[in-house]
Amino acid sequence: MSLIVQKFGGSSVATPERIRRVAERIVETKRQGHDVVVVCSAMGDTTDDLVDLARQVCGEPASRELDLLLTSGERISNALVAMAIQSLGIEAKSFTGAQAGVITTGTHGNAKIIDMVPGRLKQELADGCVALVAGFQGIAQDTDDVTTLGRGGSDTTAVALAAALGADVCEIYTDVEGVYTADPRLASDATKIDTISYEEMMELAACGAKVLMLRCVEYARSYHVPIHVRSSYTDTTGTLVTGSMEQTVMEQPILTGVAHDRSEAKVTVVGIPDQPGYAAKVFRVVADAGINIDMVVQNVSVIETGKTDITFTVPSSDGQRAVGLLTAHRAEIGFTRVAYDNRVGKVSLIGAGMKTHPGVTATFFESLAAAGINIYLISTSEIRISVLVADTDLDTAVETVHKAFDLAGDTAAMVYAGTGR
Amino acid sequence: MSLIVQKFGGSSVATPERIRRVAERIVETKRQGHDVVVVCSAMGDTTDDLVDLARQVCGEPASRELDLLLTSGERISNALVAMAIQSLGIEAKSFTGAQAGVITTGTHGNAKIIDMVPGRLKQELADGCVALVAGFQGIAQDTDDVTTLGRGGSDTTAVALAAALGADVCEIYTDVEGVYTADPRLASDATKIDTISYEEMMELAACGAKVLMLRCVEYARSYHVPIHVRSSYTDTTGTLVTGSMEQTVMEQPILTGVAHDRSEAKVTVVGIPDQPGYAAKVFRVVADAGINIDMVVQNVSVIETGKTDITFTVPSSDGQRAVGLLTAHRAEIGFTRVAYDNRVGKVSLIGAGMKTHPGVTATFFESLAAAGINIYLISTSEIRISVLVADTDLDTAVETVHKAFDLAGDTAAMVYAGTGR
Repeated sequence: MSLIVQKFGGSSVATPERIRRVAERIVETKRQGHDVVVVCSAMGDTTDDLVDLARQVCGEPASRELDLLLTSGERISNALVAMAIQSLGIEAKSFTGAQAGVITTGTHGNAKIIDMVPGRLKQELADGCVALVAGFQGIAQDTDDVTTLGRGGSDTTAVALAAALGADVCEIYTDVEGVYTADPRLASDATKIDTISYEEMMELAACGAKVLMLRCVEYARSYHVPIHVRSSYTDTTGTLVTGSMEQTVMEQPILTGVAHDRSEAKVTVVGIPDQPGYAAKVFRVVADAGINIDMVVQNVSVIETGKTDITFTVPSSDGQRAVGLLTAHRAEIGFTRVAYDNRVGKVSLIGAGMKTHPGVTATFFESLAAAGINIYLISTSEIRISVLVADTDLDTAVETVHKAFDLAGDTAAMVYAGTGR
Repeated sequence: MSLIVQKFGGSSVATPERIRRVAERIVETKRQGHDVVVVCSAMGDTTDDLVDLARQVCGEPASRELDLLLTSGERISNALVAMAIQSLGIEAKSFTGAQAGVITTGTHGNAKIIDMVPGRLKQELADGCVALVAGFQGIAQDTDDVTTLGRGGSDTTAVALAAALGADVCEIYTDVEGVYTADPRLASDATKIDTISYEEMMELAACGAKVLMLRCVEYARSYHVPIHVRSSYTDTTGTLVTGSMEQTVMEQPILTGVAHDRSEAKVTVVGIPDQPGYAAKVFRVVADAGINIDMVVQNVSVIETGKTDITFTVPSSDGQRAVGLLTAHRAEIGFTRVAYDNRVGKVSLIGAGMKTHPGVTATFFESLAAAGINIYLISTSEIRISVLVADTDLDTAVETVHKAFDLAGDTAAMVYAGTGR
């Protein structure tokens, strides 16, 4: 018998029918003899609807009240699922984040978990009860106010509970079959990845893979919680996120997958003095506005003028703000002008084996060149290569790279062999 | 400066527009220099909608989960009102029943308040903040589970908070102007009552007046909390429920008002042995099923047979169940048959001065006789006369009694004079 944490997304509990289906799946797991802890997101669009309601009441809702408002969405869905489970003859109780012992910082709207005290849950599990926990929410350590964990909060709640309870696995149920070698809509022959290391999954998430939020994978990695990403609608095995690169690299393929991201924009600061400290001034202005900088490149300086250009990417949602701020500091920093372009996309190749296979980088750029794709920016990590290209080239870039490394074929096969399934 | 508790019903906060209007009223009170605690019911039909949702998920939802589900309705409305208040420039925070210190029994669906520990609210009030509390809910003392207080729960929450905080008045905002001498739809000349004693209000509530729940008036009486029943849509003074009969009888009119109730049904047990203990058997069967008996009459026994009939009223929602139970015990109790009639209505005349004015009873029955209304059952208290009549006679009965005692004219005038307004 093992302890399993199951997390179901909003679309999985969007209607009474789906709630009953989710309940059946939970009861099935329980009847197999496992202890089960469940985390459900709010039904369908509930959270968005509540936000709209708040906006209708007042333009800029206070974050403390917004948190109290939004958390009711998860209370509703988890209570309903608990009822459905009970109607199938299994004891079930739902708990708020506070009751489940999810202790957070006081940062409303984006609180961080600082402690988990799931004593109440342990008691219920010992009594043979299925424990349901409202995801995405906690209680602030200092004020006892209700907080929310921000985007992907329910996934994080599930992983945090799995860690605190020493669960054998945290199952994240979603509407896809698992993590793919690329977006199947772009690379038609993309295949499901059977196992992937935390580090690779973190890179994929950071590079735009939507299936898991970076934060939840980071949490799982810190506490060694195996995550099983699988479909709410089928019983097929999904993708297992587990083990550190070092543990799994031997059995891993050279490369894991291709991720893409359309959410960034390119900012170029033109004609900035090529002297120490000027680049820092630029980044300070942006950083102080809480805007994250992703890729950065500084052009070779033009000897005659002693001036250079700095190009970097920011979330396009912050793009105009960044440009405005820089323009306001133009004289002070001393540059000529700011150029802005949000018609860009980022394609990334991720693979733990990359660092031990020098050929990868060459093949990567050759393939894109052969496809006639112009590259704006490059950034790399030990296990990732990312390039920024025109948004019109993004789809081709993903497909090209996916093909160039045969991620659909041998790789998938190697993963399959590697995990011994 | 005084402390005022304001309670707003579901229809008063049914839409974003109405929520903003409620917020303006609260802010106005705050700007007048008062400390304000607010209790809001769930928006419009939210609670019914959530119950429907639960029924769609499973036929008989578990009461613990149903409580967790339903309480989200008040969280939502109170958080929204808090946002609206803040947008008007006044600090406001909303709290769950648990955060507000509403400690209850563990009876889900119908919990009783056993303690109030509003320390958090006192702190917020001291900080000049408007404190909003989700009504209708509390937290079970033993289990820390979320509970609901049953029908009229938000009124009870408001009165309990007023008592615990030593508020100067508990304002109950509703969609009528106050408590009337009769239902204006039946007695066109019914007038608003300016002041009424707790005892009289309790009789009115018990006899079918919907404006306040009996339980909340009982609570107000025990803790000497003045209740001001008034309209959400106007600024006119409503009805003040205050003081014991003894304190107010001197300045009170002889009679206060007429109440009516269509929710009861008449059960007659025919041919029961007229010997000690048999009536008790009948009532025991009904009582053990948790069915409340209101009016009772035992007919004069027929000498020849030594048998008699017992007639009593129960809530018509329990009527068929009562009949079924009695029939099942027919042999054991030893009666001939059970007759059932739910086409009945109860009209009641309430007034503290009644006991000191013997003429009232005579006038009451004379007026009904003159109107040709047949009376099934009679019950009285120190300050009330109630009769059961055919439902088809109910409207006429209310109008007749209201006229017979000129409740619209002198009485109202006397109240007016009496309260010195």
